[in-house]
Amino acid sequence: MISVPWVVNDECLSLLFLRSNNDTMSELVKEFNDYRTRMNQVILGKDNLVMKRLWNLDTNTYAEGALSVKTKEMLGLVASMVLRCDDCIKYHLGKCHELKLTTEEVYEIFAVANIVGGTIVIPHTRRAAEYWEELLNSAQ
Amino acid sequence: MISVPWVVNDECLSLLFLRSNNDTMSELVKEFNDYRTRMNQVILGKDNLVMKRLWNLDTNTYAEGALSVKTKEMLGLVASMVLRCDDCIKYHLGKCHELKLTTEEVYEIFAVANIVGGTIVIPHTRRAAEYWEELLNSAQ
Amino acid sequence: MISVPWVVNDECLSLLFLRSNNDTMSELVKEFNDYRTRMNQVILGKDNLVMKRLWNLDTNTYAEGALSVKTKEMLGLVASMVLRCDDCIKYHLGKCHELKLTTEEVYEIFAVANIVGGTIVIPHTRRAAEYWEELLNSAQ
Amino acid sequence: MISVPWVVNDECLSLLFLRSNNDTMSELVKEFNDYRTRMNQVILGKDNLVMKRLWNLDTNTYAEGALSVKTKEMLGLVASMVLRCDDCIKYHLGKCHELKLTTEEVYEIFAVANIVGGTIVIPHTRRAAEYWEELLNSAQ
Amino acid sequence: MISVPWVVNDECLSLLFLRSNNDTMSELVKEFNDYRTRMNQVILGKDNLVMKRLWNLDTNTYAEGALSVKTKEMLGLVASMVLRCDDCIKYHLGKCHELKLTTEEVYEIFAVANIVGGTIVIPHTRRAAEYWEELLNSAQ
Amino acid sequence: MISVPWVVNDECLSLLFLRSNNDTMSELVKEFNDYRTRMNQVILGKDNLVMKRLWNLDTNTYAEGALSVKTKEMLGLVASMVLRCDDCIKYHLGKCHELKLTTEEVYEIFAVANIVGGTIVIPHTRRAAEYWEELLNSAQ
Repeated sequence: MISVPWVVNDECLSLLFLRSNNDTMSELVKEFNDYRTRMNQVILGKDNLVMKRLWNLDTNTYAEGALSVKTKEMLGLVASMVLRCDDCIKYHLGKCHELKLTTEEVYEIFAVANIVGGTIVIPHTRRAAEYWEELLNSAQ
Repeated sequence: MISVPWVVNDECLSLLFLRSNNDTMSELVKEFNDYRTRMNQVILGKDNLVMKRLWNLDTNTYAEGALSVKTKEMLGLVASMVLRCDDCIKYHLGKCHELKLTTEEVYEIFAVANIVGGTIVIPHTRRAAEYWEELLNSAQ
Repeated sequence: MISVPWVVNDECLSLLFLRSNNDTMSELVKEFNDYRTRMNQVILGKDNLVMKRLWNLDTNTYAEGALSVKTKEMLGLVASMVLRCDDCIKYHLGKCHELKLTTEEVYEIFAVANIVGGTIVIPHTRRAAEYWEELLNSAQ
Repeated sequence: MISVPWVVNDECLSLLFLRSNNDTMSELVKEFNDYRTRMNQVILGKDNLVMKRLWNLDTNTYAEGALSVKTKEMLGLVASMVLRCDDCIKYHLGKCHELKLTTEEVYEIFAVANIVGGTIVIPHTRRAAEYWEELLNSAQ
Repeated sequence: MISVPWVVNDECLSLLFLRSNNDTMSELVKEFNDYRTRMNQVILGKDNLVMKRLWNLDTNTYAEGALSVKTKEMLGLVASMVLRCDDCIKYHLGKCHELKLTTEEVYEIFAVANIVGGTIVIPHTRRAAEYWEELLNSAQ
Repeated sequence: MISVPWVVNDECLSLLFLRSNNDTMSELVKEFNDYRTRMNQVILGKDNLVMKRLWNLDTNTYAEGALSVKTKEMLGLVASMVLRCDDCIKYHLGKCHELKLTTEEVYEIFAVANIVGGTIVIPHTRRAAEYWEELLNSAQ
């Protein structure tokens, strides 16, 4: 019998819907979060257990462990960049911003992603850079 | 000499341009179909034979055979999801809708795609879920 | 609170290690299964909970539901082919063989994968075809 | 201490910002170029040396050598298509247009990309075809 | 009615089985060709029409047209490299060798592939470089 | 005329050939390093400047900066895993081993890669787990 210390509960799932009510949040950031929240509700509302459990597991993956939350979010960001998923990049950039990564650190992650993934990553880096600026501005 | 029972004819190609005139069709679905039709005409108008034959072959691939049309459309959908091609997903969702797949069946395909392809598939699943709702609504 | 009807138990995990003791099993099939079993033991032995739960979830994904086990294994096969993962292809071919898919059905899945994924899938189709012959021979 | 023997050459970098002032340039082409220019400035403004040097190297890759500039741009286009990067496709289409490739040549590149990469490339081919028409029209 | 000037005939298909009997052919090259030939026979023997027609179309794609055979093989090579398909790379390297590409030209294609696709392409470039040396040696 | 202001620094390039002479190094690790070294020499011997400069830049990307060498190697590992490049994974595992990452840390990177990239990453995780054991054993 494998021990399962993580409970599948509302607290975890609620993280999926969490978003800041910060009035200064930029339109770009707000739009992204709103669409994400709305569609998560549609999907989870269909009660497909595999989807629910995968999303729950996703949340647990980035929890503090042998590696810090900050390191794991950086891993999530670079993985999203080389796989060229704009929405995934935005999500992890949002987390990196909350975790107070500096612009210099973020650009070193961009650099690893561009070297490993090639110039095909550049257009995604442009959109990532734009979103990072939005995050910086929305926090002022 | 290989027998070629499929004729390269206008009937097959016309499928590429087929779209419903259903007045209740949602804007999202209509826009997708219109752009697709318009650009298919531009591309086929250039008379590149490889492109024409590939598209014709594409139509034949999903024809009834040892596997049913329904099974093949499900295969096309899951392949499109793990390869993360939003337009391909929309096309196959449209076909799945015509073939009367239930929402429960569609979400089990989503689940396989998300498990095989990882959380990187989630943003595409959001857009797929949105489009499926549009299809359900446009048919009422 | 989300209901979790699937228990994380030894029965599910044991599926990961299951392999036939059939003496007629070909060398290619046996080697694949043995390596897979041995390395699964190494990985699960490290007690990383995310890995364990993802693998358990993977098993549940292919369980009977709105779609049949056979349909889901076909989805898994075509997804593995377009993502060009030889080991994943072998695994799902093994399952398809157990589920008595015909060669004609399997080749229609190959055809969808080659059309969707392009000629880049051909070398993987060669190895898939070889493995399918091995499975057919090992069962005689 | 990292030794940085490579100088970030302004002449090369200026190429990244180059764009036509042609008044007849279509909106689609102009928008693409403007966003690209603006975000390149943001990214290069952060002074990440790896990013700067990668972009400089990118420019040099397509310079005349054993292969002609025209051949290299065709290589860049087909690579962008099979990797399904719309912005990269647009960039190389712009270069191919400047280099006077004929529509017939461009569509043979589309054909190779669609055969190698499969029908998953079709939606990107639609957008490529649209952009190519824009380039043709903007030059009249 | 679309004109179909390419006949689906034995001559085209025989190309799939073509291989040199050159006694000086290196083991690596010979092994690759032999496995390819053997498995092509297995696959085509199953009489799946989509597979047969896709392969036939594949042959036609690289035929002389607005672009030369040499240019098209270079396009096929760079596409195979960025998609990281070792067997596809070997196939196109073999063709490029038959078409007398120089080592300098081949390495400029390698360079485009590595810049576009990133350092993830390097291991495939190592195997490509090894195979190119084999081809050069086998021809002496 | 292309200006090449960047000098190909021998110190950086020599890193590409570096390998341990440790007598206890396992066969698997030794074989990987030997092939890599041999083919790097072949490739660099062809004097393609883009390839040389890309490799040099690759070395610099992982140097200490705003992020530590350890963090950057973890980023390189997770990127290699989601892009499913076995040789790249081995290379970064070797670096992670030199940098004294614990098995628990390495498996948390595996977990992020498997969640982001999906079960398609599992076969690569098996080979990564095998290589990590080899590295642990070779160091005893």
